[in-house]
Amino acid sequence: MSNKVRLVEVGPRDGLQNEPGSVPSAIKITLVERLADCGLCHIEAASFVSPKWVPQMADGHAILTGIRRQPGVIYSALTPNLKGLEAAIAAGVDEVAVFTAASESFCRRNINCSIDESLARFTPLLAKARQHRLKVRGYVSTALGCPYEGNIAPAAVARVAGALYRIGCMEISLGDTIGTGTPNQACAMLAAVRQEVPITQLAVHFHDTYGQALANIYAVLEQGIRIIDSSVAGLGGCPYAPGASGNVATEDVVYLLNGLGIDTGVDLGRLVDTGRWISQQLGRPNGSKTGRAWKNES
Amino acid sequence: MSNKVRLVEVGPRDGLQNEPGSVPSAIKITLVERLADCGLCHIEAASFVSPKWVPQMADGHAILTGIRRQPGVIYSALTPNLKGLEAAIAAGVDEVAVFTAASESFCRRNINCSIDESLARFTPLLAKARQHRLKVRGYVSTALGCPYEGNIAPAAVARVAGALYRIGCMEISLGDTIGTGTPNQACAMLAAVRQEVPITQLAVHFHDTYGQALANIYAVLEQGIRIIDSSVAGLGGCPYAPGASGNVATEDVVYLLNGLGIDTGVDLGRLVDTGRWISQQLGRPNGSKTGRAWKNES
Repeated sequence: MSNKVRLVEVGPRDGLQNEPGSVPSAIKITLVERLADCGLCHIEAASFVSPKWVPQMADGHAILTGIRRQPGVIYSALTPNLKGLEAAIAAGVDEVAVFTAASESFCRRNINCSIDESLARFTPLLAKARQHRLKVRGYVSTALGCPYEGNIAPAAVARVAGALYRIGCMEISLGDTIGTGTPNQACAMLAAVRQEVPITQLAVHFHDTYGQALANIYAVLEQGIRIIDSSVAGLGGCPYAPGASGNVATEDVVYLLNGLGIDTGVDLGRLVDTGRWISQQLGRPNGSKTGRAWKNES
Repeated sequence: MSNKVRLVEVGPRDGLQNEPGSVPSAIKITLVERLADCGLCHIEAASFVSPKWVPQMADGHAILTGIRRQPGVIYSALTPNLKGLEAAIAAGVDEVAVFTAASESFCRRNINCSIDESLARFTPLLAKARQHRLKVRGYVSTALGCPYEGNIAPAAVARVAGALYRIGCMEISLGDTIGTGTPNQACAMLAAVRQEVPITQLAVHFHDTYGQALANIYAVLEQGIRIIDSSVAGLGGCPYAPGASGNVATEDVVYLLNGLGIDTGVDLGRLVDTGRWISQQLGRPNGSKTGRAWKNES
């Protein structure tokens, strides 16, 4: 296994969106800035969804306009519709993302439409993004299992991923939303999807609910995946509540990749400090085992 | 990947030996019985070390003589010396284990002798065990890193594992005592060790301190390992204290193996219940992510 992996840090968005208490914009801004200082070069910093649905994410404009920007770092945002995209553009976003699912039931409950309807909604958004030369990322939820439908056929994931790619998404992130996947299943799903989308344009977005995320990541690295989504301190859901889903922790992923001799450009010591800091700010246990175990040299 | 893995459940011994409070023998007996009821067929139930050194383990005799035995289940014990072995035999043990390390510094601090001295000490013990037709397992600590020496050369692990095998240990368990290993390192170590010991006689004993255990297990499964040590609820050390080492949780390993279609004979639902029960008895958080997330069907 060789060379480089690009990490997409989703802590400030996917991580914080489920926090029960309102997180002040100043904390979010500091978090994004500290993550960039760690060497992370793609940070999903905000979400332009309706504040009625996700009040935690109402301050996307304040965050994108408030951060001190580092050259070479991509600050992206989730934009479910044209209105969200326009707001993100007004805030100076570098890249945007849309989301759908591989499971009809999940899609309907999560974004209140069928998968095909979700794809149709993205078409004008993608046209507008093209005008602004913005790259659009597509998320496919429930790629390894659905809370309502159980197992999801690899062909179903491939169909949605292929459709997103054909309508213009430059990168497709395959999400194990409920964290039930295991390595052979992840590889089987990937084998189907790569028939539709080049593997260089695929990312994995694994949750560690059942402790399987790093094993799954190791397995798909062997298959050639080189883009990995993760969340500092495992932000997202509560890692200690029964049944809650947590994103795989960026610290644990970087520790793994360092051990495999794969370059991420991330300073792990600084990242651990950042994970401990945000955990303390939120009053939650640190969801990263590396973050808990790491001993700073200094 | 195919067929069967034998799990060696070390929770009652390796797991409990570091518990700060004294655990009543009745709880330990119930734990061993419940683990056997889950389908685990090799349980390290006790330790016959000096009670001066490990007071938590002083009741080995009471445990081995107190448990309701299930046919086909091996109840083993750690026996660091001839005196320990004799006590274990008197208590009716099925199999015993000795331990040394791949690192001189760790060996000296842990058992107060050099590696070669530890091997010499085992010789009369192995002779006695042979008389009683008892299988002896050999543990090699610090196989992927040492808290005093840092990285450990694969050749050093191979030397100790080979020596244990040649003096009569039937199975060698390779321990990542401090949980710092990553998959390529685990595979490199294994590649060296299997030059000395047939892979069918090798087990892995990985700690999840940095969250890497399941990725490492997946990697060595690909190399042909089919014996895995684990601890229900991740017992061993405190999983949430900075720097503390925790055994990989049996529940998480079984979840992985089930996903890979590898048979363990273990009822995961019952195992999760057992992990929750012992965590509650000890007043510690459940160290298994599967144990925390699992929803019982009933």
